Amino acid sequence: MAGLAALAIWSGPRAAEPPPAVILMIGDGMDDHQITIARNYALGADGTLAMETLPYRAAAKVLGIEEADPAMPAYVGDSANSATSLATGAVTSAGRVSTAAGTDEDLPTILEQARGAGLRTGLVTTSALTDATPAAFAAHVADRDCQGPADMSRVECAPDARARGGPGSIAEQMIAAGADLMLGGGAAYFGQRIDPNDSRSPTIIHRARDAGYTVARSLAEAGAAPPGGKVLGLFARRDLPVEWEGEEARPIEIARDGRPRVPAPFRCAANPRFGDTPTLEAMTRLALERLGGDNAKGLFLMVEGASIDKQTHERNPCGHIGELLAFDRAVTAVAAWAATRPRTLLIVTADHGHAAQIIPYPSMFSDYEKLPGIGPQYPAGYVARLRTGEGAVMTINYATNAPPEGVAEEHTGVHVPVFAAGAGAEDIGPLTSQPALHDVMLRRLGR
Amino acid sequence: MAGLAALAIWSGPRAAEPPPAVILMIGDGMDDHQITIARNYALGADGTLAMETLPYRAAAKVLGIEEADPAMPAYVGDSANSATSLATGAVTSAGRVSTAAGTDEDLPTILEQARGAGLRTGLVTTSALTDATPAAFAAHVADRDCQGPADMSRVECAPDARARGGPGSIAEQMIAAGADLMLGGGAAYFGQRIDPNDSRSPTIIHRARDAGYTVARSLAEAGAAPPGGKVLGLFARRDLPVEWEGEEARPIEIARDGRPRVPAPFRCAANPRFGDTPTLEAMTRLALERLGGDNAKGLFLMVEGASIDKQTHERNPCGHIGELLAFDRAVTAVAAWAATRPRTLLIVTADHGHAAQIIPYPSMFSDYEKLPGIGPQYPAGYVARLRTGEGAVMTINYATNAPPEGVAEEHTGVHVPVFAAGAGAEDIGPLTSQPALHDVMLRRLGR
Repeated sequence: MAGLAALAIWSGPRAAEPPPAVILMIGDGMDDHQITIARNYALGADGTLAMETLPYRAAAKVLGIEEADPAMPAYVGDSANSATSLATGAVTSAGRVSTAAGTDEDLPTILEQARGAGLRTGLVTTSALTDATPAAFAAHVADRDCQGPADMSRVECAPDARARGGPGSIAEQMIAAGADLMLGGGAAYFGQRIDPNDSRSPTIIHRARDAGYTVARSLAEAGAAPPGGKVLGLFARRDLPVEWEGEEARPIEIARDGRPRVPAPFRCAANPRFGDTPTLEAMTRLALERLGGDNAKGLFLMVEGASIDKQTHERNPCGHIGELLAFDRAVTAVAAWAATRPRTLLIVTADHGHAAQIIPYPSMFSDYEKLPGIGPQYPAGYVARLRTGEGAVMTINYATNAPPEGVAEEHTGVHVPVFAAGAGAEDIGPLTSQPALHDVMLRRLGR
Repeated sequence: MAGLAALAIWSGPRAAEPPPAVILMIGDGMDDHQITIARNYALGADGTLAMETLPYRAAAKVLGIEEADPAMPAYVGDSANSATSLATGAVTSAGRVSTAAGTDEDLPTILEQARGAGLRTGLVTTSALTDATPAAFAAHVADRDCQGPADMSRVECAPDARARGGPGSIAEQMIAAGADLMLGGGAAYFGQRIDPNDSRSPTIIHRARDAGYTVARSLAEAGAAPPGGKVLGLFARRDLPVEWEGEEARPIEIARDGRPRVPAPFRCAANPRFGDTPTLEAMTRLALERLGGDNAKGLFLMVEGASIDKQTHERNPCGHIGELLAFDRAVTAVAAWAATRPRTLLIVTADHGHAAQIIPYPSMFSDYEKLPGIGPQYPAGYVARLRTGEGAVMTINYATNAPPEGVAEEHTGVHVPVFAAGAGAEDIGPLTSQPALHDVMLRRLGR
């Protein structure tokens, strides 16, 4: 256990040195294809995103194992097991939140260890705070769906149910974990009664206030919390709305003339439902301000752009492009903050690959259509065509779950990009893994 | 033109310094997904390929433009325009071989400039030497299909036709370019008569011998060529056979019971047709031996693993995995050679992305199949399931060109990985482009 060994040498900063800080930023589902898509759309084919200006680049292997046979690898992960790798350094099975495959043993997280050593800690996300990625840093359940008390009657949540003497749902466990700051969505879970069958039972929000949290429904309320006090910001019932909207991709149909009907190119637009939702950048700036100020021992902060993934599941290119750009603006804010703090390690990465691919249209093989017996050449999946900022057409194919009845796109098993800057970035190496990234982060905090 | 500026300061190595060497290795179509697939299959999910041990890692943007409007970007390239970027530093349109979009102007290549400055030069590939990637370093045509004299009656080849006073086909131009060593396939092109309509016309092989080439049909013959003399090794009529074989991916069919019929997992096997074909590693070792020996001024060598791409077009996972591993063994050989030569820059990269994706099967959304009105969840493309070396099943989806009549898979527009070591690798930066890689290589040779 690298984590426990590191704790043993944990001695706080030396005199005259700034405190250590580790900031982990996770673009959910943000693989190399997602990055290229957003870059092409917003900055042009030869553009550069903020995350791409960080001095170190690597690839991280996404490691998972099978629940039924933990000796066997699983080549495609989900946000639960991949965030568990980043949070704990352990490899587990899909759906698990910082618990061990097979045994359900709780795995200590970097946030818990940092907090135990007196550092300040925070979680910021555009999803519900109880969603798998943030949950893996401050909760331990057998299944990611055990988000609130109302979920705990599910069979997969039984091991942690209060009725069985367990610590309860993810939301309850996150309050007990006691991070200094949690900003995101999920009011629907934190607002549930701890005993759903007892109308006199307090809600988790009540319990959070008892534990010293200021519970904020706006960023202004969160910013007005007493300095040094704990903050729980709940800015949506579940996930925050996304910044951009546009057409969803759709299957290509073959018209009566035998020719494919291809969607017309379109541009993305601001999502009017975003309204006065706090941006990821604004939440992140507040987190740095509150955690990074008069802090003697250091900080650990995780920031997630959650809906890059969710919008790709839904085959909504404007959705995932807008969320990736919003995440990239948060990276800009963190990189500027970190640049003046020499013992800060910034890691920007993804948790798993995703379905979207930039493809040529018309097909590279259109000429074959003229030959006898060969039909039209067109992509197999759901297709969208975007008119990019530089005026060209970019065609995106989502084909991991077949039309017409594919409920949503699947994750993919590709390794994911890593961008890093600051103290310890050079320890990462050109090829790493999610558990190894955890170990690098923990060492930086322990120094 | 960065190239011409660099030539002006070209002054040969300083006293007591070893000569500069630049070795560019191109895995054709070898994107991050391809690398993950080969690693999982051969080394396991937590394995490390040889190329991944090189100390620098970056991503390279694949830049292309439209032939009809060169001001407009094209988001998916082919091996011709991407190799042109690497060879010349210029961005051109798909299908072009070191000629400018719109104007057809010849673009000077790094191999030509290195040769002009007295360095030794070589091209090694598993495809025909006249294929787009090697061609772009030593020929200039409007279309990649102008491979031999028999192709030159095509309308797209007219600008270079001998009948119009042009320099002729790719094969003819490559002999005229005069690289010290060319090893690969393509005997069918080099064996053509220069005037296909004249039975007394010499073949390009005759012309090559006149120009001082030893024409070899085996690696032993190539190795026995006079020291310091030129070698043209032609080891297949067109592309070299691939090292591994196995089932092709196929569309999932829905059986009468409404359930998808998914291919059974299989293992890859050695391709018996490979026979005594020289491996890419063996060809590369011979190239280093012949070019890197008593060489005062330095060398430029391009090594291509060509059939990673070709086998992915054909949806043959064992084909592309075997070729990627063969390419990786060539990387091992070059890295060992470079490690003892301090002025050597080694760059390993790909030319463009490709179709293959690792997906989960069963679907992440299988539970939805139990709901009313929702059918089975399965991938949209051609699917193969491999039993990897560690005993688990890896499912691969090829879905850029729809079943049942998709002629072949399409390239994708994702940026590509870059691995580098040695002198000048630190100049690449975490995000680069193919033209920028050319500029880094040319600067190293010019020093």
